[in-house]
Amino acid sequence: MGEFDVIKQYFMRPAKRAVLGVGDDCALLQLSPGMQLATSNDMLVEGRHFFANVAPEHLGHKALAVNLSDLAACGAQPLAFMLALSVPHLAPNFLAGFSKGLWALADAQHCELIGGDTVQGPLNICITVFGTVPFGQALLRSGARVHDDIYVSGTLGDARLALESLRGQLTLSETALRQSRRALEQPQPRVNLGLALRGIASSAIDLSDGLLADLQHILQASGVGAGLDIDAVPRSILLAHQPQALQRLCTLAGGDDYELLFTAPPLEAPALQAIAKQAQLPITRIGQIQSLPGLRLLDAQRQAVPDLWVGFDHFRQ
Amino acid sequence: MGEFDVIKQYFMRPAKRAVLGVGDDCALLQLSPGMQLATSNDMLVEGRHFFANVAPEHLGHKALAVNLSDLAACGAQPLAFMLALSVPHLAPNFLAGFSKGLWALADAQHCELIGGDTVQGPLNICITVFGTVPFGQALLRSGARVHDDIYVSGTLGDARLALESLRGQLTLSETALRQSRRALEQPQPRVNLGLALRGIASSAIDLSDGLLADLQHILQASGVGAGLDIDAVPRSILLAHQPQALQRLCTLAGGDDYELLFTAPPLEAPALQAIAKQAQLPITRIGQIQSLPGLRLLDAQRQAVPDLWVGFDHFRQ
Repeated sequence: MGEFDVIKQYFMRPAKRAVLGVGDDCALLQLSPGMQLATSNDMLVEGRHFFANVAPEHLGHKALAVNLSDLAACGAQPLAFMLALSVPHLAPNFLAGFSKGLWALADAQHCELIGGDTVQGPLNICITVFGTVPFGQALLRSGARVHDDIYVSGTLGDARLALESLRGQLTLSETALRQSRRALEQPQPRVNLGLALRGIASSAIDLSDGLLADLQHILQASGVGAGLDIDAVPRSILLAHQPQALQRLCTLAGGDDYELLFTAPPLEAPALQAIAKQAQLPITRIGQIQSLPGLRLLDAQRQAVPDLWVGFDHFRQ
Repeated sequence: MGEFDVIKQYFMRPAKRAVLGVGDDCALLQLSPGMQLATSNDMLVEGRHFFANVAPEHLGHKALAVNLSDLAACGAQPLAFMLALSVPHLAPNFLAGFSKGLWALADAQHCELIGGDTVQGPLNICITVFGTVPFGQALLRSGARVHDDIYVSGTLGDARLALESLRGQLTLSETALRQSRRALEQPQPRVNLGLALRGIASSAIDLSDGLLADLQHILQASGVGAGLDIDAVPRSILLAHQPQALQRLCTLAGGDDYELLFTAPPLEAPALQAIAKQAQLPITRIGQIQSLPGLRLLDAQRQAVPDLWVGFDHFRQ
């Protein structure tokens, strides 16, 4: 089986929304009047972003999910994606599983594969995703204003808990490992939440590097500071039963959460409650934007906590 | 130096044509009314697409050039690109050279970097490129019609000649190696030619897999056959001095040429002459589209030549 056979068997379907999909030198996209194109890409490398023994189906899911999460953070509607895939050899088992996980999420999000590249080399997956957003309505990192509340969706830290367990740093029960591993390997991009936040959130980012690091990105882009209630950061019951130091590491500097971190003026609190109810997804207030530059961490007793955690840096960790 | 420092130092410039460039979850592009977005991506892997000892500056050039070549084949005007880069470690010498070659070509083609990803792993470069083309004017592989002439730009085969030499399969003089290596490592994407061919060429593809393989892509997409005059395929003086079998291998199945292969009705011959003169780039007629399916190779004596060459397949070669 050669490169072109693989593309035909696993990665080629007729384009529905694109003008032209897989099979020519370029794919062609057309935007409705008044729409902007949002685009992002993420590259996943074995041993760095996933373990060699991950189920191919989960890997296919995650490779697209982390990209859709970037669209979600911008409030963009998914449209299409390109897949560049480097694999050591064309193993049908891997390709079948990988493409199954990829297509399941792509179909669920109405995001079609329109092109890409398949090459031989160390396993590497690079997806570029395209979405649409009405002119001027994209959620940016730079819009946070003083007195805005800081919110996060879902619960944080389970992915890091699984990572620490898989690295042999701690032991989890079989059930706990399965649950936390689902968070690590099958994150759900918050696309619908991102769409609902247009016109309500003042800034947004998706949590990939860890809460503290990603919040710093908002603060720097917006030129503001913040106070963060670290014990208010939502966590699963599973994580809540772990030692406090581990809870804090996982929720504050975990990485790979793929929840949305965003800010909104206090008057939007009722609208956010309605969105959370509609989406059946918790939205938790975890702090406030302040004029004083820098990030201040407070515990449940309103005592200052020193920042002991550094964000996830793919070259430092 | 961490991931974010690297992005700031080597890969971040203010967006000029994009609505939003490097630094948020997504980049934002806006199209003028009546324009479609053309997009393509290519992934380059060490040992497969380039040698470990290639000059970083040449690698930066080539990684973007092969993508711009896809835009050229569609007749699209370059607009922007995303860069995903996996490197074993953040070596300033490599990054400075790589980004220098990348920016030089990006600036020359008015194509701006709007986002991407930097990760740690085996060297891998994945670029996704964006261009614009007026509605319905993109050059496709599927438009070749019976009696159209088949043309190719520039000269073919020097890149493969260099590859064979670098692989130790043959010995070239220092001058010959330098010249052919330039073709291999610093291909010039035929963007202006692609733009000029809109409304004139009936189909087009860029030559990356080798002439025979890429012509087959046009024939299959268009549902036609062709006769190819293999001794009419243009080659450099350097290659013309090599043995005939090597000349044929390099011109017919060389790969990495990044010239344009296209078809046009015979009545467009004068227009093509004018375009070649304007672009100071040879355009050579090398065959004709025929109704009989399949590809027939003919030598200068109009004798049939069996197809001894298979196209470049990244998993077969």
